[in-house]
Amino acid sequence: MPDPMSPEGTNSRRAFLRKGAVAALALPTAGILTGCKPAAGDQNANASEHGAAAPAAGPAAAPKSDRAKSDEMDAMHEKGIKAFPAKTEGKGNQLLAPRMVGGVKVFDLTCREVQWEVETGKRVKAWAYNGQVPGPQIRVKEGDRIRMNVKNELPQSTSVHFHGVEMPNNMDGVPFITQPPIKPGESFTYEFTVPNAGSHMYHSHHNAAYQVGVGLLGAFIVEPKDTRNQPKVDVDYVMILNDGAHGYTLNGKSFPCTEPLVAKLGQTLRIRFMNEGMMIHPMHLHGMHMTVIAKDGWDQPAPWKCDTLNIAPGERWDVLVKANNPGTWAFHCHILPHAESEHGMFGMVTALVVQP
Amino acid sequence: MPDPMSPEGTNSRRAFLRKGAVAALALPTAGILTGCKPAAGDQNANASEHGAAAPAAGPAAAPKSDRAKSDEMDAMHEKGIKAFPAKTEGKGNQLLAPRMVGGVKVFDLTCREVQWEVETGKRVKAWAYNGQVPGPQIRVKEGDRIRMNVKNELPQSTSVHFHGVEMPNNMDGVPFITQPPIKPGESFTYEFTVPNAGSHMYHSHHNAAYQVGVGLLGAFIVEPKDTRNQPKVDVDYVMILNDGAHGYTLNGKSFPCTEPLVAKLGQTLRIRFMNEGMMIHPMHLHGMHMTVIAKDGWDQPAPWKCDTLNIAPGERWDVLVKANNPGTWAFHCHILPHAESEHGMFGMVTALVVQP
Amino acid sequence: MPDPMSPEGTNSRRAFLRKGAVAALALPTAGILTGCKPAAGDQNANASEHGAAAPAAGPAAAPKSDRAKSDEMDAMHEKGIKAFPAKTEGKGNQLLAPRMVGGVKVFDLTCREVQWEVETGKRVKAWAYNGQVPGPQIRVKEGDRIRMNVKNELPQSTSVHFHGVEMPNNMDGVPFITQPPIKPGESFTYEFTVPNAGSHMYHSHHNAAYQVGVGLLGAFIVEPKDTRNQPKVDVDYVMILNDGAHGYTLNGKSFPCTEPLVAKLGQTLRIRFMNEGMMIHPMHLHGMHMTVIAKDGWDQPAPWKCDTLNIAPGERWDVLVKANNPGTWAFHCHILPHAESEHGMFGMVTALVVQP
Repeated sequence: MPDPMSPEGTNSRRAFLRKGAVAALALPTAGILTGCKPAAGDQNANASEHGAAAPAAGPAAAPKSDRAKSDEMDAMHEKGIKAFPAKTEGKGNQLLAPRMVGGVKVFDLTCREVQWEVETGKRVKAWAYNGQVPGPQIRVKEGDRIRMNVKNELPQSTSVHFHGVEMPNNMDGVPFITQPPIKPGESFTYEFTVPNAGSHMYHSHHNAAYQVGVGLLGAFIVEPKDTRNQPKVDVDYVMILNDGAHGYTLNGKSFPCTEPLVAKLGQTLRIRFMNEGMMIHPMHLHGMHMTVIAKDGWDQPAPWKCDTLNIAPGERWDVLVKANNPGTWAFHCHILPHAESEHGMFGMVTALVVQP
Repeated sequence: MPDPMSPEGTNSRRAFLRKGAVAALALPTAGILTGCKPAAGDQNANASEHGAAAPAAGPAAAPKSDRAKSDEMDAMHEKGIKAFPAKTEGKGNQLLAPRMVGGVKVFDLTCREVQWEVETGKRVKAWAYNGQVPGPQIRVKEGDRIRMNVKNELPQSTSVHFHGVEMPNNMDGVPFITQPPIKPGESFTYEFTVPNAGSHMYHSHHNAAYQVGVGLLGAFIVEPKDTRNQPKVDVDYVMILNDGAHGYTLNGKSFPCTEPLVAKLGQTLRIRFMNEGMMIHPMHLHGMHMTVIAKDGWDQPAPWKCDTLNIAPGERWDVLVKANNPGTWAFHCHILPHAESEHGMFGMVTALVVQP
Repeated sequence: MPDPMSPEGTNSRRAFLRKGAVAALALPTAGILTGCKPAAGDQNANASEHGAAAPAAGPAAAPKSDRAKSDEMDAMHEKGIKAFPAKTEGKGNQLLAPRMVGGVKVFDLTCREVQWEVETGKRVKAWAYNGQVPGPQIRVKEGDRIRMNVKNELPQSTSVHFHGVEMPNNMDGVPFITQPPIKPGESFTYEFTVPNAGSHMYHSHHNAAYQVGVGLLGAFIVEPKDTRNQPKVDVDYVMILNDGAHGYTLNGKSFPCTEPLVAKLGQTLRIRFMNEGMMIHPMHLHGMHMTVIAKDGWDQPAPWKCDTLNIAPGERWDVLVKANNPGTWAFHCHILPHAESEHGMFGMVTALVVQP
């Protein structure tokens, strides 16, 4: 099943301008790219609130220098928001179509070092699958026979572990327990019949504290054979959290270079959170709640609701969001230092745009 | 619904002495303010265990200097416990009654810098709503029309986000996405019809890693319209966790200056945990279990029991406690360095006093 | 109920060789002690992949020095895996049989300083109950009358708190609230009728951030009176997590000196996770899922499944694992820096061996 977000391709800013933001502009208060007019409820703000020369009157009037510092801070905040979604080179987590070889779905992955633009102008060293961080999104079905050819062009040995998939032991990807490491210049083929459905991951299991932190990770999503109990969704979105060598990222990018989630009013989103980092990240959605339906690919016994979902390293959580509240909504890690500094929002921040 | 704890007012130590501790004194082993007599089960303790001159006999006898150090440590521990609940100036989280204006519940909040006594004699810089840390507790009903006038007397811009409340977009409080920042000396009015019940929060959403850490936060509790499924409780207590600039605090105070929870034997408490910090805090109650009924204001599909509840940043958890075990019970974060040092208990520690 | 793992005694490596690993050797790809032959799915690995002289061909061939570094890293990884389960002196968490005195189950615990071999050749200072880290495992039944004589041979006062047990107040173990501290050279007797079933813990509650970190902790398991709803299990395993002065440990040992879990194909394991540390540890099991049945000793309203279970300080979680996938499976904390470094796997890593 293709990711409904994927048509936006690498051209996400332009696509967003065309589809998301333009619609958002039609909303009374959507301000992502336009700045904010004083909101309906704002009865006191004077017209000059964006100017440094605003008369700071009243008993709490700040001294000029404080006010200048404050305005400078606001300007940095505004700049970040206005830039969103800022363009960067490279897009991770793109759906990888398999080659069919005699009934087997074949995926080719090459591990190599690349420069990865995590934010506009900020390029970092990454170890990537097929040049993407996260690696290509792989979607298969329960019962599929799949083959994954992994070629290691890194200067270090590696291996691939299918996290959450109940593999045959010799395909589990743990060097010296289930296979030899894949040495630089060598290859290894994983082949197996996909046993259990759910939102899973694939990542390095060799020197992994380093290798996963620097980019060797991706989503491995297994659609169930029996889809009768699957929720009907309009948008199926994978959000991979990381906090390694590239800083605080969502799908390999930091705000304002993260990708917005876009839905039309009344649509249902399925969001598949995956934590590939070393820290918890309690993800908070504004404006609407999330209904938690699965943990690590397994249905919860009963769905439950929240607005802040704590996602620990290695965990996957699937939630549904009913897009019933129009507007552009902040969506961020609620460990605030992962999302905001004096220079504005950064890191694990994106937005859910609900188009009217 | 008023907070049953609130009649104690700012005068909490005196009130506790009158109501809680005096009753506690009647318990055989309550030792908070009286020290401990050797307990019934103690068959070996000699009468001089509080004295540095106690004969340290036996095969493991510590050298004099070790024993002196140990006694010194014990004395510091004892001093903290004996001081509890120690008096400080200022009390946060006090219920704020609204003004009624044409059917609208109006709340006035002023943000300003204050000195906040987080522990006896330890004053810290705080940015506070109406001079309180946490800010005043706001309790409204589902469907209420409310207006909150926010005046910014801080040297920095700010905004108010109603965390967990499914707001109209232009009232969501995110600068440059839904409104302009509220500049120093200026005001902003939030007005909306309260959409969803539950234990929510309000806090700054501008430079928030700093502003929330230094005090701009409070409880925003929405009683449901339909109360038929609400549990009947005798004590409704809000416990806000924070770990920012003021250290490890419960409702803005550090042990021994935290407020005890008090209930009579057989009563039911509802505790609304809210984490406004940057770290998880697994809160552990001694002597009784907690029954978890809601997450982020939404009922859990089925209540479940625990004695240690992990609360992540941005999360709210509602629990019930049946006060069926008389005595004074430690109640603390189980990340032990948030609760105890060589100098005794501190930080995120309080007690539940169950009066016979 | 005795721990089915305990017959292995302190002689765990030899026992494992005899029972676990030999069986594992029969598996096609079990490589813990034998190294790995190229796996069935490996179509490209050349025969010399373990040698530094392997021709590093192809477009991504690493320069000689990189390859040498990579091989050196692999060799360190291999050495750790091959050593598992490595022998150390001392075994914690051993079942302590009570003395029966007039219908009372009596346990004697002595707190004293020992040298504890946390990894082969790495001895650390520990404060231990009966010379073990974790202290002896105590298993009693709901309704039992028990007495625990605690003798303090440490240079510092201490106390014992029965974490999760709904004690009479004067037995709760909190110095200056429920009892005086147990001074060096002195003793204290805890006596009570065991009130509530479940996977609980006992540990110091005096200067506890230090004392628990250095070893004063153990499992206190209460079997329910009514066992009709208890799951039938073949292996009942306690896994205590710690991250204090001794580093990242499972039952007091670091990988490769941790103890493997062993089950026969088709058997059911019950694993009782207990976190005595200061950090979360999301424990990830490869190859099979875990069914979560209890939290802090209380049944969950409905069992739920996962492969990565986040365990916070002070929490206990009981899970069932159906050993239906033969092989040797990594089982580790998924905060990767708690489990792997450039020098190989270490810390919070063990394996589940499913024998065919």
